[in-house]
Amino acid sequence: MIDMSTGVAQRDVLMEQFRKVRRDTELICAPLAIDDYQVQSITETSPPKWHIAHVTWFFEEFVLSHFNSSYKPFHPRYAYLFNSYYETVGSMQPRAKRGVLSRPTVEEIYTYRRYVDDHMQSLALNLDESQWNKFYQRVTLGLHHEQQHQELLFMDIKHNLSVNPLKPAYHEQRQMPFTPLAPMQWIERQGGVQSIGHQGDAFSFDNETPRHQVLLQDHQLASRLVTNGEYRDFIEDNGYQRPELWLADGWYLIQQQGWQQPLYWELQGDKWWQFTLAGMQKLELDEPVCHLSFYEADAYARWAGARLPTEPEIESMLTEQPIAGNFVNHEILHPLPGKGQWYGDVWEWTASAYSPYPGFQPLGGSMGEYNGKFMCNQMVLRGGCCVTPENHIRATYRNFYYPQDRWPFTGLRLARD
Amino acid sequence: MIDMSTGVAQRDVLMEQFRKVRRDTELICAPLAIDDYQVQSITETSPPKWHIAHVTWFFEEFVLSHFNSSYKPFHPRYAYLFNSYYETVGSMQPRAKRGVLSRPTVEEIYTYRRYVDDHMQSLALNLDESQWNKFYQRVTLGLHHEQQHQELLFMDIKHNLSVNPLKPAYHEQRQMPFTPLAPMQWIERQGGVQSIGHQGDAFSFDNETPRHQVLLQDHQLASRLVTNGEYRDFIEDNGYQRPELWLADGWYLIQQQGWQQPLYWELQGDKWWQFTLAGMQKLELDEPVCHLSFYEADAYARWAGARLPTEPEIESMLTEQPIAGNFVNHEILHPLPGKGQWYGDVWEWTASAYSPYPGFQPLGGSMGEYNGKFMCNQMVLRGGCCVTPENHIRATYRNFYYPQDRWPFTGLRLARD
Amino acid sequence: MIDMSTGVAQRDVLMEQFRKVRRDTELICAPLAIDDYQVQSITETSPPKWHIAHVTWFFEEFVLSHFNSSYKPFHPRYAYLFNSYYETVGSMQPRAKRGVLSRPTVEEIYTYRRYVDDHMQSLALNLDESQWNKFYQRVTLGLHHEQQHQELLFMDIKHNLSVNPLKPAYHEQRQMPFTPLAPMQWIERQGGVQSIGHQGDAFSFDNETPRHQVLLQDHQLASRLVTNGEYRDFIEDNGYQRPELWLADGWYLIQQQGWQQPLYWELQGDKWWQFTLAGMQKLELDEPVCHLSFYEADAYARWAGARLPTEPEIESMLTEQPIAGNFVNHEILHPLPGKGQWYGDVWEWTASAYSPYPGFQPLGGSMGEYNGKFMCNQMVLRGGCCVTPENHIRATYRNFYYPQDRWPFTGLRLARD
Amino acid sequence: MIDMSTGVAQRDVLMEQFRKVRRDTELICAPLAIDDYQVQSITETSPPKWHIAHVTWFFEEFVLSHFNSSYKPFHPRYAYLFNSYYETVGSMQPRAKRGVLSRPTVEEIYTYRRYVDDHMQSLALNLDESQWNKFYQRVTLGLHHEQQHQELLFMDIKHNLSVNPLKPAYHEQRQMPFTPLAPMQWIERQGGVQSIGHQGDAFSFDNETPRHQVLLQDHQLASRLVTNGEYRDFIEDNGYQRPELWLADGWYLIQQQGWQQPLYWELQGDKWWQFTLAGMQKLELDEPVCHLSFYEADAYARWAGARLPTEPEIESMLTEQPIAGNFVNHEILHPLPGKGQWYGDVWEWTASAYSPYPGFQPLGGSMGEYNGKFMCNQMVLRGGCCVTPENHIRATYRNFYYPQDRWPFTGLRLARD
Repeated sequence: MIDMSTGVAQRDVLMEQFRKVRRDTELICAPLAIDDYQVQSITETSPPKWHIAHVTWFFEEFVLSHFNSSYKPFHPRYAYLFNSYYETVGSMQPRAKRGVLSRPTVEEIYTYRRYVDDHMQSLALNLDESQWNKFYQRVTLGLHHEQQHQELLFMDIKHNLSVNPLKPAYHEQRQMPFTPLAPMQWIERQGGVQSIGHQGDAFSFDNETPRHQVLLQDHQLASRLVTNGEYRDFIEDNGYQRPELWLADGWYLIQQQGWQQPLYWELQGDKWWQFTLAGMQKLELDEPVCHLSFYEADAYARWAGARLPTEPEIESMLTEQPIAGNFVNHEILHPLPGKGQWYGDVWEWTASAYSPYPGFQPLGGSMGEYNGKFMCNQMVLRGGCCVTPENHIRATYRNFYYPQDRWPFTGLRLARD
Repeated sequence: MIDMSTGVAQRDVLMEQFRKVRRDTELICAPLAIDDYQVQSITETSPPKWHIAHVTWFFEEFVLSHFNSSYKPFHPRYAYLFNSYYETVGSMQPRAKRGVLSRPTVEEIYTYRRYVDDHMQSLALNLDESQWNKFYQRVTLGLHHEQQHQELLFMDIKHNLSVNPLKPAYHEQRQMPFTPLAPMQWIERQGGVQSIGHQGDAFSFDNETPRHQVLLQDHQLASRLVTNGEYRDFIEDNGYQRPELWLADGWYLIQQQGWQQPLYWELQGDKWWQFTLAGMQKLELDEPVCHLSFYEADAYARWAGARLPTEPEIESMLTEQPIAGNFVNHEILHPLPGKGQWYGDVWEWTASAYSPYPGFQPLGGSMGEYNGKFMCNQMVLRGGCCVTPENHIRATYRNFYYPQDRWPFTGLRLARD
Repeated sequence: MIDMSTGVAQRDVLMEQFRKVRRDTELICAPLAIDDYQVQSITETSPPKWHIAHVTWFFEEFVLSHFNSSYKPFHPRYAYLFNSYYETVGSMQPRAKRGVLSRPTVEEIYTYRRYVDDHMQSLALNLDESQWNKFYQRVTLGLHHEQQHQELLFMDIKHNLSVNPLKPAYHEQRQMPFTPLAPMQWIERQGGVQSIGHQGDAFSFDNETPRHQVLLQDHQLASRLVTNGEYRDFIEDNGYQRPELWLADGWYLIQQQGWQQPLYWELQGDKWWQFTLAGMQKLELDEPVCHLSFYEADAYARWAGARLPTEPEIESMLTEQPIAGNFVNHEILHPLPGKGQWYGDVWEWTASAYSPYPGFQPLGGSMGEYNGKFMCNQMVLRGGCCVTPENHIRATYRNFYYPQDRWPFTGLRLARD
Repeated sequence: MIDMSTGVAQRDVLMEQFRKVRRDTELICAPLAIDDYQVQSITETSPPKWHIAHVTWFFEEFVLSHFNSSYKPFHPRYAYLFNSYYETVGSMQPRAKRGVLSRPTVEEIYTYRRYVDDHMQSLALNLDESQWNKFYQRVTLGLHHEQQHQELLFMDIKHNLSVNPLKPAYHEQRQMPFTPLAPMQWIERQGGVQSIGHQGDAFSFDNETPRHQVLLQDHQLASRLVTNGEYRDFIEDNGYQRPELWLADGWYLIQQQGWQQPLYWELQGDKWWQFTLAGMQKLELDEPVCHLSFYEADAYARWAGARLPTEPEIESMLTEQPIAGNFVNHEILHPLPGKGQWYGDVWEWTASAYSPYPGFQPLGGSMGEYNGKFMCNQMVLRGGCCVTPENHIRATYRNFYYPQDRWPFTGLRLARD
């Protein structure tokens, strides 16, 4: 775990974490052919090589150049190539065109990683004590940033492989643990004034702050996630053909795109299959439904006579749960049947638009672009998923995607008044 | 005023209101040439002839056909042509293609209006007492619906004329009342648990319900709207060139569209002009800035070291204010300098995404499509504007537009923590 | 006929023709409601009001302003609004946005027409003899230009009405003359060196010149046009599903657009109907097939074991035929069964790309933009159609459209080696 | 040279040629990193790995499967992945999506090549004598097909590298041979009836047949290609700002795309540079201008008071010239100054639309899709270029591109009447 909660963190502890996170990223890419590193199947996904260069540039730009005025960047144009969206830092390769960059090669990018890792080690050893706290915070942010891209690597690799008619697998499917599906129950939750958001010295992103009071109504939360079997019932009840179940923008979208099922589902004869990181697999009905847009999650909930939980409702519950579940560390890379499922498995769509908390102040400087500027048009998701590192998630963690996004590991849990 | 607050409303009172609202709609169109009725300048706007037919169809579909089983619609295809977005009622002419319908002619549409008006009168007189309450509610909804389209008529006519290089005027500018600009002051507002939303027998839209408690933080509200002069300062301080001021989606949009000023502003030499319903006019610096997208309002607020108010913050204040201001009844059709400006002048963007209130239940049947299905991707605006009928607005009224929309009369007021 | 072949043409003869052509344009519009004048259903079509203003501007810009230095244009912005594509004259309203101009109104445009007509009369009377020849040529060009727009008026009105679900008729269908279908025969045509193109004093467009020699192979021409019945056989033989019959660009287009039949054909139950200027009518099998793209004409010919004729092949034959046929003067406004059909009925697609003749010199000045700059990406059509004025067509006349265009009255005749 | 003109071609001679052409393809790819094989920068270009698989599939589909009924394709889905446009053979990966296929990997594709090469060798040895002629023709077509893709490999690699901000070089620039620029002279050419097109047993594509008579006018041809220096004069004379010089579609295109110079030209300060296969290089004024669209070539010719030559004009001259010039064998991969330049250097745009010759019959079966279906919307180019294999070009060779295409090595020569 990236444990930065102690006030007397040691340099070697931090750099041990640094090496661990950096190594994890490369382990994710280990099964890839060089060819796989290059693909950008849709604008939303990025080539794996871009990810592993971008997270490296993050340390170069925001740590090495920041704390070491004599640092010489590895290559003068990499800032242009691997800047994602930091407008205040400079111009950048257009997002939709990341897939046309054959150079630098994968090999050169790994050399770039070594170069930056070495300079990071050296800087950590030689940094003046007066700068340590700031350095510690920046590096920690950089590591959480890299963990976010670890998630994206799995999501993007999955999509990139899925568009290939050969349907190649990223890994061999493991023996799945037997996890029987628990019946869904409604958990009563009392309303009232509660506090949500992050507080204290432990790491969080700026968008989780400030901790503040919210007023909850009494409500109920489902005891587990919605399953493939339940979602199949929705499909078979003509869920995709009934406009009264859909938000207007969602109805328009599914007409336009011809969506009739979740991303990665495929009907062969009368059997449903789904594409997974282990290739095409029979659809398991007890698994949580995954790769839904917000619109589909919302329509399902309406069909089920329920609704999606709000962000405070789910955070309130997450706070009471241990951080445990089907995370990337289990190496399943796929959601599993179970009960609770509060953390891991699938990112859960909430009914809450991604907005600033009352009194929200973004980080200063370019780091202020990290989260704050996306607080429009997106919806909050909570709880992490099966490709999230266990030490990356928290009860207060706010993830966010556009309502039409389906390529992340997204699913849902029901709520009702 | 459409006063339905009394429990013993009489049939002739209702039908008097009916005739008044219907007549108002036609008065708005009185200055138009037949040619003007036909134009759809962008997908978001509709031809005036479509508006006046659509509001008529609303009464035909949801009142006449509903309460009179032997009612014969004026024309069998008008339901297709003039249905706006009621998917549960049937298919419809695509929104972007409303401007290609030369038939029915304007003349035929006025005949249609007469036909429906006559049948409404007749139905109101002959309706069985047992149906009265339901009829009363439907007609009242239909009248508020028509008032919303009266606003849209002004907005759409303005846009339709604005794209014409001849810059034709809708009306002659009146002698403007002298309304000196008050200095902007910060009004302290206490937080705490408050109730917002509609309650009681008076008319409201379903999206204003249920009344519920919210928790407000302490905050400050500006004593008046942001002016053209203040917004010009933002422009001259390179507001449109500084990415750190903008939400990411807004920054992308202004690059793509080349926006450098509010809609309708035009720099001629070194003087700013703006297109109004009275044609091109010199920009008055003390008037409220108008025809901004949410992104521009939000960027301005950030530049000014402030933020947009939230929906509960502004409703809380509106509740304390008299419903008075520069409404359509004043026939100015343009925002005016002043103080307070809580109602009228411009619809004020809030920081709140348009979401269902806790416990929200849409109206049953097709009327459930009226508001609920738009609760995604849009932002709430409050307070009415200079083309809003005075008896149409309330403290609890929730208007909503997409963040990129600029053709409505949209402006802003600042808030801060 | 606009006969300008005599060297001693009189002023009153010319102006008599002027008045006739101008009046014909207005007669075409006589059945229109004001509403109909405004519609632009697709980018390729123009609102009728734009047509009647544009042809008027043509005389204003290229005759009145040219020959009368003190001429004051009717309105300073009309040159911008009604310039079609004369880049050397100045900037212009984008073509796709002609339909959003509600002003000037139809009434104002008729006033504009009167104004220009009066000035034309006056100029013709007072013009100095030395300028007569040049004036005569310009006016004659302007009249042929207006006749081209008369054709377009019919084509555009037809399309504009066709997109309306009410399927309104432009006129009442007349009693059709009985014209039995002749069996199709192959006419032997000898090859060899021949001359094509225009020569002499009579009017022609510049693209018909210079007359030059071409070398024809021996070939055969069909004795009549392809009929609806024959084209239906092509459809029923899965013509639209067989890629081997299609040019690559055509195959791509019909997939993308979902084309399965000619424009205006509609299958109701098991009966074919088609939209005509007299509204929806049963498909008459003996009539020439009409409203085909070049791709469809070409695919049909390939399916029939034949090909389209080349431009010289068809001109060679046209030269031998009398200029007679189903023209606009017959007021049928629809192609008719028959034999020969060399002129009138439908514009016949040829296999020839629209290219300059050897030695082609465009007219000088802005008039050089009339034809020459379109000599790329378009195909030649020959023979006129049922909405062509009889005195407008010639054996050497070269019409041209893009291969995907279907809204003109386009059809085909077979040829083979 | 691939000499198949002898009637007694031996099997080992053919297979020697086969091995040579196949090896040449791989040598072109030798300088590429694995990463470079994957890129598709625009829809028109293909990833190098797709090219080398596609040409292999061509032999598999049209030779191995055709002549050996027991042949087992290497992989059942490769026909889908690597079919380019043969609709009659089956469905295929959309062209615009060739760049998202990370699998098969480059390594697997080379294995595929070995597999097909081995089976080709084996088939050639064991083929029954009765099938030899047909086999010989198919293999020869396949080799010319592969040579066409060798050209495309250079063109596509150049474009794929050019979009990379790092501007990587494909190869090191060689010592350029000194080739002084000859002054341009007009060569008088007599008109009259001549024959063009292919005849005889030597290989040609079907689109070069049948040989037929054409009638030429007297004309003049420039003695060399237009140079960079001459084209720069056109730019400096505001060639890109003067609509009277442009075809309408070209003018529209350059406005829309913002084209102000040939593809690959870049102004740095006041110096012109250009991207080449050897990276960014100073623009050499004496070199032939290259990477022009047809529209630019046509506009330049008009500006120069000349025109583009027609296809028969240029073929007539090519027939009189030895097949010699700056071809791929010289390994310059860039056009050179010189005189004549009839073959090699740049493909020369002609004024002729790509149409079937009189009496043209495409090859039977799927091979009929090779050329014929593209005979619309494209223009003919002649003479080969600096990446053309010397033994691939002929006087009668008809190349064709869309008028907007600039990524091939395209240039121009002037002609006039």
